[in-house]
Amino acid sequence: MTTTTALLALNSHYPFWRLSDRHAGQLQSAFPDVRFRVAHEHDIPVEIRTADVYFGWSFGQEWLDASPRLRWTATPSAGIDHWPVAALDAAGVTVTRGYGYHGRPMAEHAIGLLLGFSRGLFTSARLQTRSTWWKDDLASSFFDLYGETLTIVGCGSVGLRLAEVAQVVGMHVIGVRRRPPRSEPGGIEWVPAHRVDEALPRSRAVVNLLPATAETHGFFDESAFKACRPGTIFINLGRASTVDHDALLDALDQGPLAGAALDVQPRKPPALDDPLRHHPRILLTPKSAVFSHTYMDEAVAFFVDNLRRFLAGQPLNGAVTPTHGGTHAPH
Amino acid sequence: MTTTTALLALNSHYPFWRLSDRHAGQLQSAFPDVRFRVAHEHDIPVEIRTADVYFGWSFGQEWLDASPRLRWTATPSAGIDHWPVAALDAAGVTVTRGYGYHGRPMAEHAIGLLLGFSRGLFTSARLQTRSTWWKDDLASSFFDLYGETLTIVGCGSVGLRLAEVAQVVGMHVIGVRRRPPRSEPGGIEWVPAHRVDEALPRSRAVVNLLPATAETHGFFDESAFKACRPGTIFINLGRASTVDHDALLDALDQGPLAGAALDVQPRKPPALDDPLRHHPRILLTPKSAVFSHTYMDEAVAFFVDNLRRFLAGQPLNGAVTPTHGGTHAPH
Repeated sequence: MTTTTALLALNSHYPFWRLSDRHAGQLQSAFPDVRFRVAHEHDIPVEIRTADVYFGWSFGQEWLDASPRLRWTATPSAGIDHWPVAALDAAGVTVTRGYGYHGRPMAEHAIGLLLGFSRGLFTSARLQTRSTWWKDDLASSFFDLYGETLTIVGCGSVGLRLAEVAQVVGMHVIGVRRRPPRSEPGGIEWVPAHRVDEALPRSRAVVNLLPATAETHGFFDESAFKACRPGTIFINLGRASTVDHDALLDALDQGPLAGAALDVQPRKPPALDDPLRHHPRILLTPKSAVFSHTYMDEAVAFFVDNLRRFLAGQPLNGAVTPTHGGTHAPH
Repeated sequence: MTTTTALLALNSHYPFWRLSDRHAGQLQSAFPDVRFRVAHEHDIPVEIRTADVYFGWSFGQEWLDASPRLRWTATPSAGIDHWPVAALDAAGVTVTRGYGYHGRPMAEHAIGLLLGFSRGLFTSARLQTRSTWWKDDLASSFFDLYGETLTIVGCGSVGLRLAEVAQVVGMHVIGVRRRPPRSEPGGIEWVPAHRVDEALPRSRAVVNLLPATAETHGFFDESAFKACRPGTIFINLGRASTVDHDALLDALDQGPLAGAALDVQPRKPPALDDPLRHHPRILLTPKSAVFSHTYMDEAVAFFVDNLRRFLAGQPLNGAVTPTHGGTHAPH
């Protein structure tokens, strides 16, 4: 039996997205027979040559030819639109993405954004330094989440977590998926993606979690926004490519949208004069919806489980194929 | 049997706090034998003279001498610090306040404020027009609610509702009350008010729901804020008199508070140069926490139940006595 070599390339500007020495130690203790190598960005092209397993934030397609032993690449990310899935698949290398741990922070983010609009908190933040008393402004614009309907488009495991929180404040939840599940977990009303226009007019809030694929490009276009009910709050925690932002601005200015929050934008960062920054009813967050201090702990736990499966020759969790990768529900 | 006359004086600048014709019609249908009178502000002093029951937003102590038939005054409010409870009690008139329906909007408000801080949403609102990219600002200041502890001071029915939402996002909840209940509803850890200093250092967020009484005056003083853990978010949805605002500003500037949200302020509205308006880590809302479009529906339903009890000679819900009124847990 040859030793398995696993290359760990989880570097980040942010500590909570970085593999720590503690994580590396955990892995080594859990798998004493695996040879773990921790690589910095610039070492990856060399280290990958002797790796059987790669666990990292990004993968360069050009590394593939020089890595004859590679059999599995894993990323903690939920989205894999930045990963060369087709090339890896053609070379017989398995690709896995992570799921199950993006939902907690993203649900907190989405509900916080929704309440920021519904309770007039963003309006308060803007007016507290300049308006004598803005109680009338809020009285004419606030709404209760209780009793309202939330539609979650691209409702995978992140959406299910969000649904749980929305339901406890008394919202009705519609889950939109390409193929709705047969069972109805947690009281969610399922609607297939091609019939989203039936869900939008009934909803006070729409949370978009769609991944970036050819199929989802411009999903939220003029016609989708026109189908929304007056006063709707639109929140995008998915991918910017799934939204037509000119149509979004029109829907804010000429109705029916009352507000929008965008965690992803067409240009990152948006130009300082980008109208998305300056619209009084748009809130931008800098792709921070998935910020979580426990992120790497959970990503490593997910990888540990998968590595055990890999060594035992069992199917891996989160395996992605080119077709599947292009259209899977986001997590 | 003489006819009971009920005077309804629920006027408001805001439609959701106003008794509508529909509500008056509902009452008349439910109690065909009761004579209902709907009074505008200026008619109350005259109409009160023939009323057995009064249901309104405020009660003038000077009306008492001229209302010999009065036996019960009811307000939809949770707090009754504005009501002449002692004088009414001395005159043998029962006082009731409302409870059970303030919790929904207030829980939404509190969780929204908490997430606005924890997810960096208020920081985003401030920076999106002027900072090139504020991802690093959020990365160094955000926190997960999941796994953190929330202390609710003055934890009555509003607090229980808030606890339910906080628990679903994975927070541990400490309820502080003068006299903690013997049972432990919903997994809350109870701490008596005189031992609040044991709860504060363990909490990431503190929500104050204390009513205004002699006992609660200045409850959150320098020593209470010093007992808080670094990074704490303090939210006041109770009464302004329960907080020493100079101590609050010190706790924000010299630690340990990371942010504060105040739905009540010492002066209403605060002066335009009030430091509470201009502190970058304070969010003010204009006593809007209890805004709810279903408020009057639920307040009327509560009153209907009580009126039925009143007519049957049964004890009323929400009855307040001078002693009790001064110190009851807020709802």
